[in-house]
Amino acid sequence: MNPDRRKFLKRIAVGSGMLVTGIPALPATFAVTDDQMDRSISRENNGQRFNMCGYAAPKIETVRIGIIGLGQRGSEAVERLSYLNGVEIVALCDKYADRVAKSQKTLEKMQRPRAKEYTGVEGWKALCENNNIDLVYTPTPWHLHTSIAVYAMKNGKHAAVEVPAAKTIDECWELVETSEKTKKHCMMLENCCYDFFELLTLNMTRQGMFGEIIHAEGAYIHDLSKDWLFNKNAYADMWRLKENIGHNGNLYPTHGLGPIAQCLNINRGDKFDHLVSMSSNDFTLNNMARDLAARDEFFKDYADKPYRGNMNTTLVRTHKGKSIMIQHDVSTIRPYSRIHLLSGSKGAAQKWPGPEKIAFGHSWIKKEQLDDLYKKYSPAIVNHIGAIAKDVGGHGGMDFIMDWRLVDCLRNGLPLDQDVYDAAAWSCVLPLSERSVSRRSRTVDVPDFTRNAWQTNKPVDLTLNGGATTGVREIKPDLKM
Amino acid sequence: MNPDRRKFLKRIAVGSGMLVTGIPALPATFAVTDDQMDRSISRENNGQRFNMCGYAAPKIETVRIGIIGLGQRGSEAVERLSYLNGVEIVALCDKYADRVAKSQKTLEKMQRPRAKEYTGVEGWKALCENNNIDLVYTPTPWHLHTSIAVYAMKNGKHAAVEVPAAKTIDECWELVETSEKTKKHCMMLENCCYDFFELLTLNMTRQGMFGEIIHAEGAYIHDLSKDWLFNKNAYADMWRLKENIGHNGNLYPTHGLGPIAQCLNINRGDKFDHLVSMSSNDFTLNNMARDLAARDEFFKDYADKPYRGNMNTTLVRTHKGKSIMIQHDVSTIRPYSRIHLLSGSKGAAQKWPGPEKIAFGHSWIKKEQLDDLYKKYSPAIVNHIGAIAKDVGGHGGMDFIMDWRLVDCLRNGLPLDQDVYDAAAWSCVLPLSERSVSRRSRTVDVPDFTRNAWQTNKPVDLTLNGGATTGVREIKPDLKM
Repeated sequence: MNPDRRKFLKRIAVGSGMLVTGIPALPATFAVTDDQMDRSISRENNGQRFNMCGYAAPKIETVRIGIIGLGQRGSEAVERLSYLNGVEIVALCDKYADRVAKSQKTLEKMQRPRAKEYTGVEGWKALCENNNIDLVYTPTPWHLHTSIAVYAMKNGKHAAVEVPAAKTIDECWELVETSEKTKKHCMMLENCCYDFFELLTLNMTRQGMFGEIIHAEGAYIHDLSKDWLFNKNAYADMWRLKENIGHNGNLYPTHGLGPIAQCLNINRGDKFDHLVSMSSNDFTLNNMARDLAARDEFFKDYADKPYRGNMNTTLVRTHKGKSIMIQHDVSTIRPYSRIHLLSGSKGAAQKWPGPEKIAFGHSWIKKEQLDDLYKKYSPAIVNHIGAIAKDVGGHGGMDFIMDWRLVDCLRNGLPLDQDVYDAAAWSCVLPLSERSVSRRSRTVDVPDFTRNAWQTNKPVDLTLNGGATTGVREIKPDLKM
Repeated sequence: MNPDRRKFLKRIAVGSGMLVTGIPALPATFAVTDDQMDRSISRENNGQRFNMCGYAAPKIETVRIGIIGLGQRGSEAVERLSYLNGVEIVALCDKYADRVAKSQKTLEKMQRPRAKEYTGVEGWKALCENNNIDLVYTPTPWHLHTSIAVYAMKNGKHAAVEVPAAKTIDECWELVETSEKTKKHCMMLENCCYDFFELLTLNMTRQGMFGEIIHAEGAYIHDLSKDWLFNKNAYADMWRLKENIGHNGNLYPTHGLGPIAQCLNINRGDKFDHLVSMSSNDFTLNNMARDLAARDEFFKDYADKPYRGNMNTTLVRTHKGKSIMIQHDVSTIRPYSRIHLLSGSKGAAQKWPGPEKIAFGHSWIKKEQLDDLYKKYSPAIVNHIGAIAKDVGGHGGMDFIMDWRLVDCLRNGLPLDQDVYDAAAWSCVLPLSERSVSRRSRTVDVPDFTRNAWQTNKPVDLTLNGGATTGVREIKPDLKM
């Protein structure tokens, strides 16, 4: 046994021992090992097989969609996608049959034909093997994302997968290699890239209004502890609470990172270079688990576990010398924030804490001036579909804009806004932050999933040129989400 | 020559070469060397000679003050201190005689007796040797702070020194060792600890209203570039611009760090354990320098220098597992911020971006509720002297509260709110962040300047028990700052 492996096992043992005695300890961790890092470097050195950035797949007149995972997020997707013309929802899959039945009812309500049903633990495989599907749309628990996306692509489908697209560095590379080999899209469904302030500031950045973006910040600060993580009815088999056990890092980096990565042209002119990450201890989750366990046998399994620290802060430096701060906290009682801060040589923007703010000097501009900027600088997609999206709903409209754009790109043979390299780069902060945290915030290199193509890849297209042909069905008031 | 030294020199050489060709390069750095870190560990291991935390020096009925450094900050101090009863400003010192003359006029305006004058490069030494002084108050350029404070203490005076108190780890230890040996106070004049929201949230923290503070943030984000750093008339011999050359890290951590360190009881129940630090490149200062140099011969000396990166972000972890984020940016155009965020298990507070915010759940409370908290939870010092301080002015009153408290503690033989360990711990982020930045954000241990006394040291006293005997002279409207 090599010394690192021995140390690793020893650390886990110490961790477990501590838990029994109730003394706070550094939790055992599943952080990226040196072996995995070495494997990543060798995969990077293999060179790119085919560049999926800017790749236009053949047009699909009517996009036949199979949806896997029909929990809250998935059942919402069934409803949203039903509004789009040029779409057929041909297959529905969930481990649990009652969830499929519920989504069939949604299709009925939306006057859509019934879909083929897939259930059970391996239902998703059968769905991916169905030859009448163009796109596999996957809002499952996190640990299934990569397996499903990879299997879908290997079976000739485009893959749209919820965040995070991958949980390990190996998974990140598997997505990249499979997408390049199959020439199938792999889009991570990072809906926050389609929120209105994020789209405004992306377009303003592109217009040079903030000058050079020097520093940016994003976050997923959202107290899920009481109402979601410890809610027996929220996530099947408590999967989301379990993710917070043993893993210590930024488990959910992409909502904050995606929009600012687009502003910084990551993978398209710049790239992440290295990161460091720090977690606080846990001061809330285990207390909650113990309190619940004292009243309810069910929660005994969740008490005295190595919960991740409440707050994780990760710093990423880009090749061009820009700095990024990303935070993650789902277990401290405080107002929601994704921060979304851009600090440039000519101006700054910040979304949280609200109200939304923009500055071109030492003071934030007034509300009326911000309204003017929205009118002048919202990109084409907002003017085209923004009002309808707000009407449909789904996180204020951004979910619908995202779905519409995905479908419209597939129907018109346009490159997707988010490619497999974005999915990998934004998601890899999860395992790499864990590695850094487990090593006392040591510096960790970020792989270049584009394998040098970042130097010539073009930024995300903010025009709707060649597209915008996808219509939306009438939105009846009683159908609104 | 050892390999590290050779690498270091090589890096400087490469850096310089790059500058000539105009290619962006990692700037040469004066970051803490391994030797200095080793020396720090051995000083820490020496053990504490005498605990200055909570130390009550003999009462001083009338505090005789000598002020060294009469630039903008120093001349304001002359005016503020003149309002206090129980104070004599007996000596004034500046390298430049005209500045001393100007402050003598201030004393005259305030109906105070003329002070003894000290000028020239070594005037400060003579002032420190004057036996009729109790307190040496030092708002000089940064590089003189430690030398003056140490010499003052060695000459039997208490030392009050502007921020940062020290620029190197050696200097931090020199302050600590001298204060312990001489039993003279060494207080860093961290005025932001006395701002109203900071005092409110410190007291609320003490009352347990935010629960356990898990994560905190502070900053000094203040665009000084055009009006201050590159202003020929702002800082003698352009010293403050020069500080931004060659040094790459958080040069000015204490305004953001002091108030949150008090909330976290750093050195008094917890301590900083380690930090990592990341800087962006410089995208503004050298451009400004070049633009100015093209129009004005004077600025030629400041073009193509290794300016520090615009934004520095430093993460500090405490012994008890709390995390701290500290930022520093004085060269990007954006609104002022010290952040001042506290995230606790029962609530959160954030001062910037404004308005001031407090939450005990998922929404920030309303303005009226915040007003109520100010009424109920502002600590004794605010109720006692806050209104007068606002009337006098000086950063909205906090400068005056600080001066009043310092003088009142000395007059009543009370421990000071900020001791030499605070000065050292808050200032050491400057050199340690440079070390981390120069090593690609590598983890750096933070010395324990209390040498284990943090485990039993008591938190800052928020009562005015035993004090509050210092009066304030009538504030005439035409004298207001």
